[in-house]
Amino acid sequence: MRLRKKKWSNDVFEIYQNYWYDVQKAPKGNWKKILNTNVIRLEIGSGKGDYWHQLSKLYPNEGIIALEKDYTASSIALKKLEDNPETNKRFLFGNANELSDIFSPKEVDIIHLNFSDPWPKKKHTKRRLTYDTKLNEYKNILNDNGLLIMKTDNVGLFNYSVVNITNNGFKLIELDVDFRSQPQEDPFTEYERKFHEMGQPIYRGVWQKI
Amino acid sequence: MRLRKKKWSNDVFEIYQNYWYDVQKAPKGNWKKILNTNVIRLEIGSGKGDYWHQLSKLYPNEGIIALEKDYTASSIALKKLEDNPETNKRFLFGNANELSDIFSPKEVDIIHLNFSDPWPKKKHTKRRLTYDTKLNEYKNILNDNGLLIMKTDNVGLFNYSVVNITNNGFKLIELDVDFRSQPQEDPFTEYERKFHEMGQPIYRGVWQKI
Repeated sequence: MRLRKKKWSNDVFEIYQNYWYDVQKAPKGNWKKILNTNVIRLEIGSGKGDYWHQLSKLYPNEGIIALEKDYTASSIALKKLEDNPETNKRFLFGNANELSDIFSPKEVDIIHLNFSDPWPKKKHTKRRLTYDTKLNEYKNILNDNGLLIMKTDNVGLFNYSVVNITNNGFKLIELDVDFRSQPQEDPFTEYERKFHEMGQPIYRGVWQKI
Repeated sequence: MRLRKKKWSNDVFEIYQNYWYDVQKAPKGNWKKILNTNVIRLEIGSGKGDYWHQLSKLYPNEGIIALEKDYTASSIALKKLEDNPETNKRFLFGNANELSDIFSPKEVDIIHLNFSDPWPKKKHTKRRLTYDTKLNEYKNILNDNGLLIMKTDNVGLFNYSVVNITNNGFKLIELDVDFRSQPQEDPFTEYERKFHEMGQPIYRGVWQKI
């Protein structure tokens, strides 16, 4: 989805400059110190930031980091800091070449992939966030026994991802093919709530780095 | 589902005596010879036998074996031999204690579990056909690289089974959380067609013995 640029986008980046980093200037190796925590949680592809904000409330003792490359979506996420001022979170804006430019090995404890672009065409397999090279990046920055948690409503992406993640250095520890049929602690993303209200199942998997 | 006993049940066991074995008298170790094939396919819990009959047509060069403990369901499956007289199949009637009483090690190439009883209560976990002890039985009779193929419409059973199978000596090679959204070679079971026509998704997984 392409977002219309907001006239206040530039302003919020200025106003909330203490909350975000350009991916080129990330405090690699110092995240736990900066966020005064033992647990770093990273959401890759945070969009407009609803999940990020909710996680920071749900887990006040953890450091919650959002990564997003879209400028307007990022500005919307930052603007919501007005109503969600918790300080245990940071935003990363920009197009990360390699996650290892942003995080030291084992610096992250939990990675969230929420409703990632499905890239349904076979020729675009390499662009999926669960493609082999991406999984290697996750393994690199994840702590021992670190978790990779994925949610999607996309059948093709889920089918592909469960097999690929499970056979590439991660142990499958939870699977749910109808995640929202039961009450869950896990917050809804904006997309997720919409899909759920339309009656579409939400798929979720949890893997542990091995 | 409890079936009403048919007045012809005893008769069909007599008429088709060359097509079935009591599980206590199975030709353990001789299946490939008897069915003149290199590939043995076993459906565990065949109910009224629709899938069994369709498989025997679809794979005329394989030996197709059905296992069912319910007497009336078994008699219905046998009665359908009137319209499905292929000879590359056998029926096993009875309550198998251990699959190793019926098959020699590595004698089976593919095992199908179709719409098995979900046993949703936690205290009944051990009764599920994907519980650890069952998986050990499957590994014992499956050939090297043999396949375990599971279909169900039951969310709880699928969630449990995918994790349990994958972490107990089987490699996950295919997953589909909406198997009938595409045309498939695989036949419908009677239950499956009903659920599918009601709009319920069919879940399917394929694992390889490792």
